[in-house]
Amino acid sequence: MTAPMLSISRRLRNTPFTRRVTEAGVKSYTVYNHMLLPTAFDDVVSDYHHLKRHVQVWDVACERQVEVRGPDAARLMQMLTPRDLRGMTPGQCYYVPIVDETGGMMNDPVALKFADDKFYISIADSDLLFWARGLAYGFRLDVDVNEPDVSPLAIQGPKADELMARVFGDQIRDIKFFRFGMFNIEGREMAIARSGYSKQGGFEIYVDGFEHGEAIWDRLMSAGEDLDVRAGCPNLIERIEGRLLSYGNDMTRENTPHECGLGKFCDTHIAIGCVGRDALLRVASEGPVRQMRSFSIDGDAVPPCTGIWPVFADGERVGRITSAAWSPDFQTNVAIGMIRMTHWKNATKVEVETPDGMRVATVREQAFT
Amino acid sequence: MTAPMLSISRRLRNTPFTRRVTEAGVKSYTVYNHMLLPTAFDDVVSDYHHLKRHVQVWDVACERQVEVRGPDAARLMQMLTPRDLRGMTPGQCYYVPIVDETGGMMNDPVALKFADDKFYISIADSDLLFWARGLAYGFRLDVDVNEPDVSPLAIQGPKADELMARVFGDQIRDIKFFRFGMFNIEGREMAIARSGYSKQGGFEIYVDGFEHGEAIWDRLMSAGEDLDVRAGCPNLIERIEGRLLSYGNDMTRENTPHECGLGKFCDTHIAIGCVGRDALLRVASEGPVRQMRSFSIDGDAVPPCTGIWPVFADGERVGRITSAAWSPDFQTNVAIGMIRMTHWKNATKVEVETPDGMRVATVREQAFT
Repeated sequence: MTAPMLSISRRLRNTPFTRRVTEAGVKSYTVYNHMLLPTAFDDVVSDYHHLKRHVQVWDVACERQVEVRGPDAARLMQMLTPRDLRGMTPGQCYYVPIVDETGGMMNDPVALKFADDKFYISIADSDLLFWARGLAYGFRLDVDVNEPDVSPLAIQGPKADELMARVFGDQIRDIKFFRFGMFNIEGREMAIARSGYSKQGGFEIYVDGFEHGEAIWDRLMSAGEDLDVRAGCPNLIERIEGRLLSYGNDMTRENTPHECGLGKFCDTHIAIGCVGRDALLRVASEGPVRQMRSFSIDGDAVPPCTGIWPVFADGERVGRITSAAWSPDFQTNVAIGMIRMTHWKNATKVEVETPDGMRVATVREQAFT
Repeated sequence: MTAPMLSISRRLRNTPFTRRVTEAGVKSYTVYNHMLLPTAFDDVVSDYHHLKRHVQVWDVACERQVEVRGPDAARLMQMLTPRDLRGMTPGQCYYVPIVDETGGMMNDPVALKFADDKFYISIADSDLLFWARGLAYGFRLDVDVNEPDVSPLAIQGPKADELMARVFGDQIRDIKFFRFGMFNIEGREMAIARSGYSKQGGFEIYVDGFEHGEAIWDRLMSAGEDLDVRAGCPNLIERIEGRLLSYGNDMTRENTPHECGLGKFCDTHIAIGCVGRDALLRVASEGPVRQMRSFSIDGDAVPPCTGIWPVFADGERVGRITSAAWSPDFQTNVAIGMIRMTHWKNATKVEVETPDGMRVATVREQAFT
């Protein structure tokens, strides 16, 4: 069971770009934050090659925004994450692990700071709005927490700078990585960040207003015809190569940020007021006993990874694979998983139980780049 | 765009019954609480006829449980809902609207009371766990809020009593509507409630432990062979006929319970301590200006309702349809929608803008029964 049909209803929300995505011949979807997220156009392999060579426009409206506004905005933001936000300036994007009081991952979004009293949190697949609102209400914070009518549109690939400069002017080239600028688009100030869920470089336009989606999509498509611009989407193979984690796939509330290799985004000692601090201080001092790694898996292309694949060494279970795919560029199966410290050193050989049998696999400390 | 392919990944969780559902020939899925929910086996119309005549076993594991345990469990439960829970006794199920501080619907689950210090909340499609945990943390409640390894399996249809009695004994027949009893199943105490998301009668087994899913499924299937038991799922047509609301489809955080026709489950005056009380007292005293109704829509079968269909009267917008389907038994299109008080009286004629043109529709105060 790898590709059954998806029944569409209002509950699986359309995006401002759904009509264009359909016209572009989307083949399959997933559901993400109660919204449609395309997963393939030509097919995952063709999409992959194209992404690495050209430029794609991605409907990632499902990266819903949690807008945090008001005098206590900065306080709530610091409650949400163990990352120290004191140095964050307007125009910056921060990748922020968000944990519950036990240190378990609730989301791994990117936060955008507009001002001391206004942030966006561009979320992964969980209703972070509910957690943030619960905290705000419980702590009686002077803050408004809502989901604005804002839908990210990603432009990814090596020709992203050229395409974006044609549409929005050369100043787009000056935006540094994980920074954003404000641009007048369709008569409205919209944020454009140098960010995105690929390692091929690019931007995310925070399209403000559902009604502007198609016009912006169309401008990008016509300006990029000679660049071979295409509709695309986050690519399973490319994101596994680059070890871009997927919340719900590679990690859940069971995991601490340290296990996920996100310890570098935790300044738990100085992030006074963050939820989960007690639990994470303990983890930070002792270190995690298992951690996220990349893997190569020997043999032919593995079947789709739709669940946990146990990892063994000497017959003992030492970890698990949670994402895997055949990589045309690396000519091996690439994978992401969690492994115990006894076996997490680079080049360690382990065995993976896939649906079609045991495979030899090799631990990699670095992503595939 | 009505049925594209669904890409499966760990993030769209399998259920304890997914293997059996696949073997039974599931045709399509939706995603509900980050989990697979079947939407059709034969096809929606055949499934509908079968449900009304025989008995079906439904994988509704996606009705995830929020377990609330501890000395402050009852206090947290009353914070979550404007329904007065003081009279709730162990063994009762309560349909409980859950609202945020502005009175907006966050979920419309069924709560089960096991004891003063233990409840389950069997949730609709939103991460209610995050809201409940946020409140518990913010108010420093002595309570543990978690998602247990519990997966409801529904047995629905006119022969449900017979099938369940064969498997679990005749005492199953004594369970009253929206009550549950504890039964020893597979060596474990599990709750069985007379409840379910259809109007055909039946039960929900709260399967405790992923590993027991297939054994229970198999016992039901073999005991019911001569009853023509089949794998089924919540049926779009039948639930619209019965006006069973769907969170995310028929209502969202935009709506109050009163608009949704759930005012009878709000005892806001006496539900001291419930979140949203200030806002709902206002609504309760003034009454809603629009409300949920059933509709019949003239003409041939309408296309799938995948978004909002505006409703007009004399050229003015007066409401919207959010669910619609052709009903073989009523020989008309049945629908659920929200309509302004100026036009909500029974038998009022209005016009609905469907994707294939305007249709005449009639307001119905009662569901189709």
